[in-house]
Amino acid sequence: MNDLPLDPRLVEDTLPVIDLPLSQVRLMNDRRFPWLVLVPLRRDISEVFELSREDQTQLWREATLLGQAMKDTLEGDKLNLATLGNQVTQLHLHVVIRKRDDDAWPGPVWGHGEAVAYTLEEQADMRARILAQIDAIDFSG
Amino acid sequence: MNDLPLDPRLVEDTLPVIDLPLSQVRLMNDRRFPWLVLVPLRRDISEVFELSREDQTQLWREATLLGQAMKDTLEGDKLNLATLGNQVTQLHLHVVIRKRDDDAWPGPVWGHGEAVAYTLEEQADMRARILAQIDAIDFSG
Repeated sequence: MNDLPLDPRLVEDTLPVIDLPLSQVRLMNDRRFPWLVLVPLRRDISEVFELSREDQTQLWREATLLGQAMKDTLEGDKLNLATLGNQVTQLHLHVVIRKRDDDAWPGPVWGHGEAVAYTLEEQADMRARILAQIDAIDFSG
Repeated sequence: MNDLPLDPRLVEDTLPVIDLPLSQVRLMNDRRFPWLVLVPLRRDISEVFELSREDQTQLWREATLLGQAMKDTLEGDKLNLATLGNQVTQLHLHVVIRKRDDDAWPGPVWGHGEAVAYTLEEQADMRARILAQIDAIDFSG
């Protein structure tokens, strides 16, 4: 994986999965929600508009294609995409698969209760599911 | 403005401002946060990935350019962009200018307390500020 320096909070809260053409895919360590975080592999960027126009398009493409595939495979009810960054300044994009019976529905996942860590087995399973989806997607322009 | 049928909750919560090439810009009637909502002028769409690839790129472009301009003019600290849609199924994109001293910082604005409506004068002022920014932006590809 790329050696981009990561915000310590991202390191603490998320597990690395794989690098896409632009972004590193990380899994939020919270088994309550299928929740990915895309971190563009660019230094010193905190706002989407600081990326080049090509990178902006690529970031949204990666998020949308991966979100759509994960929603399909997990039979989610709604895809939530968001870039907030009020606490972690390094640019990152949330890709969350929501279900009508999840813990926070219909509210947002941010700030909702405490994260519940995956077991190692669950981590491996989610990782495999994500990689299987990514394998079938063409992320190039 | 376009005659796209709008979800009743969007009609209730937001004020129409202007139509961009793809989206109708609406102002959330909540003076606590400078908060725009972009509603793509396409029928029967609830997920970003249901838009054509060209429309997807255009939607993010409109949100990013308008968000950047509004953040600059309002001296915001962070731009929040999000499409959630857990409560209103019609596709809409939130563009929120956050400040470190705003009511919800650093938490998300969704579900945070009760909206505080603008006075008519404040509405007119915000509308003028938004239109002045839009006037200076080239939203075409």
